Amino acid sequence: MKFQIRKTDSQSKARTGVLELAHGTVQTPIFMPVGTQATVKTVTPQELETLGAEIILGNTYHLFLRPGDSVIREAGGLHRFMNWTHPILTDSGGYQVFSLAELRKIHDDGVNFQSHIDGSYRTFTPESVIDIQRNLGSDIMMVLDVCAPYPCTFEEAQKAHEHTIRWAKRSLDYYKESTSPHGLDQTLFAIIQGASYESLRKESADQLIDMDFPGYAIGGLAVGEPKEILYGLTEFCTDRMPVDKPRYLMGVGKPEDLVEAISMGVDMFDCVIPTRNGRNATLFTWQGRIIIKNKQYERDFNPIDTECGCYTCQNFSRAYLRHLFKAGEVLGLRLATIHNLHFYMELIRTIQKEIDANTFSDWKKSFYKSYIINEPINPVD
Amino acid sequence: MKFQIRKTDSQSKARTGVLELAHGTVQTPIFMPVGTQATVKTVTPQELETLGAEIILGNTYHLFLRPGDSVIREAGGLHRFMNWTHPILTDSGGYQVFSLAELRKIHDDGVNFQSHIDGSYRTFTPESVIDIQRNLGSDIMMVLDVCAPYPCTFEEAQKAHEHTIRWAKRSLDYYKESTSPHGLDQTLFAIIQGASYESLRKESADQLIDMDFPGYAIGGLAVGEPKEILYGLTEFCTDRMPVDKPRYLMGVGKPEDLVEAISMGVDMFDCVIPTRNGRNATLFTWQGRIIIKNKQYERDFNPIDTECGCYTCQNFSRAYLRHLFKAGEVLGLRLATIHNLHFYMELIRTIQKEIDANTFSDWKKSFYKSYIINEPINPVD
Repeated sequence: MKFQIRKTDSQSKARTGVLELAHGTVQTPIFMPVGTQATVKTVTPQELETLGAEIILGNTYHLFLRPGDSVIREAGGLHRFMNWTHPILTDSGGYQVFSLAELRKIHDDGVNFQSHIDGSYRTFTPESVIDIQRNLGSDIMMVLDVCAPYPCTFEEAQKAHEHTIRWAKRSLDYYKESTSPHGLDQTLFAIIQGASYESLRKESADQLIDMDFPGYAIGGLAVGEPKEILYGLTEFCTDRMPVDKPRYLMGVGKPEDLVEAISMGVDMFDCVIPTRNGRNATLFTWQGRIIIKNKQYERDFNPIDTECGCYTCQNFSRAYLRHLFKAGEVLGLRLATIHNLHFYMELIRTIQKEIDANTFSDWKKSFYKSYIINEPINPVD
Repeated sequence: MKFQIRKTDSQSKARTGVLELAHGTVQTPIFMPVGTQATVKTVTPQELETLGAEIILGNTYHLFLRPGDSVIREAGGLHRFMNWTHPILTDSGGYQVFSLAELRKIHDDGVNFQSHIDGSYRTFTPESVIDIQRNLGSDIMMVLDVCAPYPCTFEEAQKAHEHTIRWAKRSLDYYKESTSPHGLDQTLFAIIQGASYESLRKESADQLIDMDFPGYAIGGLAVGEPKEILYGLTEFCTDRMPVDKPRYLMGVGKPEDLVEAISMGVDMFDCVIPTRNGRNATLFTWQGRIIIKNKQYERDFNPIDTECGCYTCQNFSRAYLRHLFKAGEVLGLRLATIHNLHFYMELIRTIQKEIDANTFSDWKKSFYKSYIINEPINPVD
């Protein structure tokens, strides 16, 4: 892996850069569509390429349970299994163990849990999740961490943080001595935890930075906390993270969250919002979100967004999209996903250009002038 | 509409031809993918074009109820609403009234029924379904008919047949005096009924042929009757249908049904089998059907069919398809639909070529040598 900063904005901490990975080059800041189960839901890899996606995320927890990392290893890795030739980041499975699995029990060595699919007993250790991610062949692997819920007590947060630190050390040691079965140069990022407590965030960041990982993520945010905490702690962390290494804010977020976090110097994002909201008939426009199922679109033969160049907007009307959703047609899920991912990729491309031109701060003001945040423009009829 | 026979097979009644319609030319024999609710389920119009589909079917009953033909008329017709530029055939809604709607009551003027969506009371008359299909702007419209179930008594069948004949006459008269709101040259096909009774089928065919419709369909088959009846009555009808007009066997069928009916001189087919079976993980190969969810494909990294040139087979393995279905991923439905539709279109294209080369009968023998009919190759594990 190689990371190079190209430009830093003069009026904020925003920056553009280039991340060189085993399967290609990624321009930062970047948004990674989420491909939980070896597919970004409803779309083909070909469509993702057309949308301009440069890197996607795969979920280790899900792929470990189904189809199993040994199947994917035998297929030649996740890239070949799903026919995606560009970079992939895999998470460690930690977050899913804490949000999806049953009966989880953390011990010093790792975490025992029951599969949410078949109830089978499974274990993740810092070493085993490296092995799994080696089998998957992702370009960027993540360390096993413990993600504390929001809200949580200081003691809970501290315990999660301490596990995360100890496991990060073991992960790095094991990473250095293990090799890729696919002959790939895989990199490993650490995850800063510490919940909503600045003192823990500081400890976590300091100790992980001492270990000298190739890249750093901010974990444990976007778990239900208010915006002030999300933004405040993101900046608290980015201010402490190395300038010359990629910074990844996990699980974030809404368009305005990307804009804000990029202003604070974040380089990488992943989030299910564009895809999941799309499947729930919520579509992004440069004026804000609209709910396409609403009656007002029954005879609206304009595209979702007249400024949008996506396949959906170039070929179909709001009335048609509304009809597909009302009728429960799969094509509606596809067209909405394509539109929303295009919106996110276009947002990111615009921001990259504005940072490079040193006009990001002006652009940000104009973005907020037209884009309505918080509530959808048209609440459900 | 213009219909021209190009070639008739010397050893069977199979024939190739060209059907000129308002939105383009169709090579016959043709298979029409079913686009019930203004979408062939899971695929885009662009993908249908790539698959070589030349005409698709829309369901008047469904479109009348949702989004309503007035919405589609306002959109500029079904073609513009769903962005499909090639021909469309719409059925009359008769079949769905008898298979889906509640509390239907046939009277001389038409049929009253309750919507299966919201229970609202609706009426179809021979004239109203022409109006609806005029609003939809389909290239080929179908007359309102009464489809008797299988099995049914002679009296039931006779009553259904008599309604069908009277309504056909009214349909033709109304068709001649009505015009297209979209300025299109729409044609109208009659439907031969008579259930499993040859005497009624003969009466139905004779009387409809006397009325001189532009084209004729065989209705009321593929409703659960044994193959002997399906094939026997198809041939009974085609032997009586005009040679110089298109012959359409409604709702048929499996690959072997197409092969047989084409041998009897049928020109047009529609069926949900390739799309619906695809969504149920049943995939067609030149050796027969396979059930891709089966355990045996867990580590099978070959394409569905090594002889297949479809997008799915060119890019993905059986193991990946199986995974998508096991994980409930929408992409699985798409890739299976693409493969199965490609199989059907390829089957039809092959048959066209073989008839033109006067080698259809030899090809038919070789097809049956490799293609296993009736049961899937691998019943569910």
